[in-house]
Amino acid sequence: VLRRLSFRTGGESHGPQVTALLEGLPRGLELDVEAIDAALRRRQGGAGRGGRQRIESDRVEIVGGVRRGRTIGSPLVLVVRNRDDSIDALPEPTRPRPGHVDLAAAYRYGDLDIRGSLERASARETAGRVAAGAVAAQLLGAVGCEVFGFVRRVGGAVLPDDRPSGGPWGAEDVARLRQIRDASRLYTLDPVVDEAMRAEVAAAGAAGDTVGGVVEVRARGVLPGLGSHLQWSERLDALLGAAILSIPAFKGVEIGLGFASGARRGSEVHDPILPMADGDAVDALPRASNHSASGPSPT
Amino acid sequence: VLRRLSFRTGGESHGPQVTALLEGLPRGLELDVEAIDAALRRRQGGAGRGGRQRIESDRVEIVGGVRRGRTIGSPLVLVVRNRDDSIDALPEPTRPRPGHVDLAAAYRYGDLDIRGSLERASARETAGRVAAGAVAAQLLGAVGCEVFGFVRRVGGAVLPDDRPSGGPWGAEDVARLRQIRDASRLYTLDPVVDEAMRAEVAAAGAAGDTVGGVVEVRARGVLPGLGSHLQWSERLDALLGAAILSIPAFKGVEIGLGFASGARRGSEVHDPILPMADGDAVDALPRASNHSASGPSPT
Amino acid sequence: VLRRLSFRTGGESHGPQVTALLEGLPRGLELDVEAIDAALRRRQGGAGRGGRQRIESDRVEIVGGVRRGRTIGSPLVLVVRNRDDSIDALPEPTRPRPGHVDLAAAYRYGDLDIRGSLERASARETAGRVAAGAVAAQLLGAVGCEVFGFVRRVGGAVLPDDRPSGGPWGAEDVARLRQIRDASRLYTLDPVVDEAMRAEVAAAGAAGDTVGGVVEVRARGVLPGLGSHLQWSERLDALLGAAILSIPAFKGVEIGLGFASGARRGSEVHDPILPMADGDAVDALPRASNHSASGPSPT
Amino acid sequence: VLRRLSFRTGGESHGPQVTALLEGLPRGLELDVEAIDAALRRRQGGAGRGGRQRIESDRVEIVGGVRRGRTIGSPLVLVVRNRDDSIDALPEPTRPRPGHVDLAAAYRYGDLDIRGSLERASARETAGRVAAGAVAAQLLGAVGCEVFGFVRRVGGAVLPDDRPSGGPWGAEDVARLRQIRDASRLYTLDPVVDEAMRAEVAAAGAAGDTVGGVVEVRARGVLPGLGSHLQWSERLDALLGAAILSIPAFKGVEIGLGFASGARRGSEVHDPILPMADGDAVDALPRASNHSASGPSPT
Repeated sequence: VLRRLSFRTGGESHGPQVTALLEGLPRGLELDVEAIDAALRRRQGGAGRGGRQRIESDRVEIVGGVRRGRTIGSPLVLVVRNRDDSIDALPEPTRPRPGHVDLAAAYRYGDLDIRGSLERASARETAGRVAAGAVAAQLLGAVGCEVFGFVRRVGGAVLPDDRPSGGPWGAEDVARLRQIRDASRLYTLDPVVDEAMRAEVAAAGAAGDTVGGVVEVRARGVLPGLGSHLQWSERLDALLGAAILSIPAFKGVEIGLGFASGARRGSEVHDPILPMADGDAVDALPRASNHSASGPSPT
Repeated sequence: VLRRLSFRTGGESHGPQVTALLEGLPRGLELDVEAIDAALRRRQGGAGRGGRQRIESDRVEIVGGVRRGRTIGSPLVLVVRNRDDSIDALPEPTRPRPGHVDLAAAYRYGDLDIRGSLERASARETAGRVAAGAVAAQLLGAVGCEVFGFVRRVGGAVLPDDRPSGGPWGAEDVARLRQIRDASRLYTLDPVVDEAMRAEVAAAGAAGDTVGGVVEVRARGVLPGLGSHLQWSERLDALLGAAILSIPAFKGVEIGLGFASGARRGSEVHDPILPMADGDAVDALPRASNHSASGPSPT
Repeated sequence: VLRRLSFRTGGESHGPQVTALLEGLPRGLELDVEAIDAALRRRQGGAGRGGRQRIESDRVEIVGGVRRGRTIGSPLVLVVRNRDDSIDALPEPTRPRPGHVDLAAAYRYGDLDIRGSLERASARETAGRVAAGAVAAQLLGAVGCEVFGFVRRVGGAVLPDDRPSGGPWGAEDVARLRQIRDASRLYTLDPVVDEAMRAEVAAAGAAGDTVGGVVEVRARGVLPGLGSHLQWSERLDALLGAAILSIPAFKGVEIGLGFASGARRGSEVHDPILPMADGDAVDALPRASNHSASGPSPT
Repeated sequence: VLRRLSFRTGGESHGPQVTALLEGLPRGLELDVEAIDAALRRRQGGAGRGGRQRIESDRVEIVGGVRRGRTIGSPLVLVVRNRDDSIDALPEPTRPRPGHVDLAAAYRYGDLDIRGSLERASARETAGRVAAGAVAAQLLGAVGCEVFGFVRRVGGAVLPDDRPSGGPWGAEDVARLRQIRDASRLYTLDPVVDEAMRAEVAAAGAAGDTVGGVVEVRARGVLPGLGSHLQWSERLDALLGAAILSIPAFKGVEIGLGFASGARRGSEVHDPILPMADGDAVDALPRASNHSASGPSPT
């Protein structure tokens, strides 16, 4: 009984907890709680994080949808508690900050309760998404699909386009790439670049500033036919775009070549479908390239 | 009685018609049918369109939700008829095309009915969206918001970043920009660039190829507080991203500075909120820049 | 690829047409258009209908979701045209009628555009539902499920509880019951009761009044596991109740014994599950009774 | 900023807790936690409840959506902890019970994990609904609307139709009726009937059986224009019907006269709208009766 996964979250930045309700999981998926916690720890890592990241050490509690360590098909209820739950005591900001919900919410609600808005708009809410996403990754893993993300750019420090090199997508390679990424401070794939990224963060911090970046996510073993062409709102690219742009501070998303395809000809952006060779599995029709990355992924 | 706008479409590329059901309109909006038809004509323009564009001359029919030319709050039912409604007679393709739904749908449905999939996945479906969007633009217009799009790039031909120049957003200017755009062949803002874009299209066509591009959309008078921070799926950036990436062939979306902000410091991407000067309207708090373009737009 | 069926309608009582968008159908269902039209005709039958029923002779047009007479999985777009499309010319009522949307909408919208509200609230909208329902019945039929409705009561004229008698649910019997029902004037199962019902209608009409009634719907071959216990809003009884009570003028719904179970003991309302006899199909576990009618139906 | 209220729940009968996510509340509603707990206690009362009701003493915890005792517009996250959280230790039933999800879920999932289904289907889930409903009641109370329910029938013991007598809907009366109800054992409005109801329950229990019943809910001060005629699924009667029939064991729902209107003439079921008398408030147009109970309520 496969249903479309969906999730909603509740909770404030300095309230008691972040809660995620993840619906649509099949029955019988064995959950790896430690893997969820590892994802939560990764969320808290990186250079330049404030003091809060140090006092938090997020762990998930699963308070619904599980029996004896396996999903039973019910809504999965995930809780990540906040160490700092001082919402009632915190002061009420009086100056809206640019780039935050503060001013837009003041217009919308017609009040000056900036605290009441920023508490929910805070990126702390993404702890719930990370927990839900880590579960989704386990479901994908159960059908042979792996998703792997890393940092491509921080300010002027850029991981070169030819990295990861040598065809990243043998199963072995992903494990190795994860190791490299997790050993770095800024989740990138090269120690020298990692150092340069840290320097960018440090320099910005020293100037009382912050610095932007770009992340890249790759997937292999993607089931063909995810999303749907039947209604505009169900198209895979639309679902992916909404998921990415709903993360605070993300201002752009590219799929496959993305904007680069605007400068190319069609023959340079499409991924020709090759005839099967003897012995190819029927579910792995080969492609000559992987520019669009919305069809089945190449081997 | 304001409700969230939503729409769904039905209809195939070579079926009798494309239908759009647009729900959430307030009561009493006077509809400008000619403006909807103008948007449909613009959709059919551009260089390098195939023969079909020439036989089609899309017009909207409104078959629900209107009385005496005004909305009554009911679902608006918009119909755009297809001149070519030969769906039953058309042959069944046997080779899936890359970059289309053909192969993914074959996997999903486990059949080879490529025609049955491509008919609905076709970009013809966007005629329904254009009609619905043209109505939405009229609703926005009624509250003083204008949305304006143009082509920034076609292959190697690029409209320079400093265009439109001179502060585009006086009301007068938008009207002038629309005129310039609509007088061009490829919906750009400079005759020389337009010519270069046409050359790109022609060269690609001569080589049996196509060529990509980039469009840019600007809005002014945006009501502050659209979207919501209350749930990830309701955030304005997420809604915009889904809308853009649901259009066939769009593979990237940027909001404000977009990816460029990844190379910048925070002080270079945020839009400081300025103190109001005497006489400023309360609903137009000034900003020093417009990098993020998700708060109230600057004057 | 099975998805949950859903539908939305658009259109006004005296607008050009009623439109229904039915989503979630599988691919490849052969549609019997004549059967849809038969359902539309049945909707227009009965005694005491006004002059309008006589000028209308509803027929469905399918303008989306079909190729060569079969569904392709896309949204099915169903159109029923109105013979009387005088919405723009009709007068604006000034007195709200009880039992209609008139007054509630006046409060809600804060205006007196009664015509603007009643046009959409009219029972004419159910023509779209009947068309969509007739398609759904064909999908159910393809998996061996039959749904059959008839009139149990009109005012004081009641079809006795023991009718239909003799175990209605052999396949043959349903066909016979349909014949009996369709030969009657008021869609009941006994000519004498039918006559009494017509007399009720006539007497009420002569007094410038109307008269109420009760309909009963039975289903056989229901797939076990429809609806879901995972979320309150997906429970089968909730979905059925909403569907029934959304029909104008319906003020009550009972499932199985309904209110009668309030006067009974649990042992009298549950349907004991019997051990399978040799040769029973696994998908037809027998029951000793059919009081609840929300599990698998008895043989 | 008013939005449509919606809620979803998670949690199992013997899991750690029941969670409800209530979305759409306005900002600034002061929550009366004790009133929510009182509703939870009432849910646990009544005669004939099993041992579990005695060990539970439900209390709500609000872990999202609140600051300093007031809603901030965010999703309200309500938690009711289970005293018995032995889900992992409980045995797996092997015989499906009639009237429960057991058999239907076994068909649906194709497995025999009855425990995995019944845990979520259990009426324990309604603790989350009661908590959410108690909050909704506070929102209604803030706009002058009161909702009051009581038990009309238990088996053969029936509270007569003329009770509550004497026009229940002066504000004072509701408070008194609540007192009477809450002082009874079975939430009815007459001590003698209460005693008879208890006898019904006791007799059934002594026979190893259970007994059914009927509850009645009344509302006053209902805002006109709730629900919507714009789409079938938004009609007030449909929303009410789905809410009622989604409660386990409820097999029927009537609105206003309900089935009784099937035996009446139209003139006996509609509620004529009376002309306003001098001094009537514009938002309280008087009615001569209250049969339909879906328009504005009478004074």
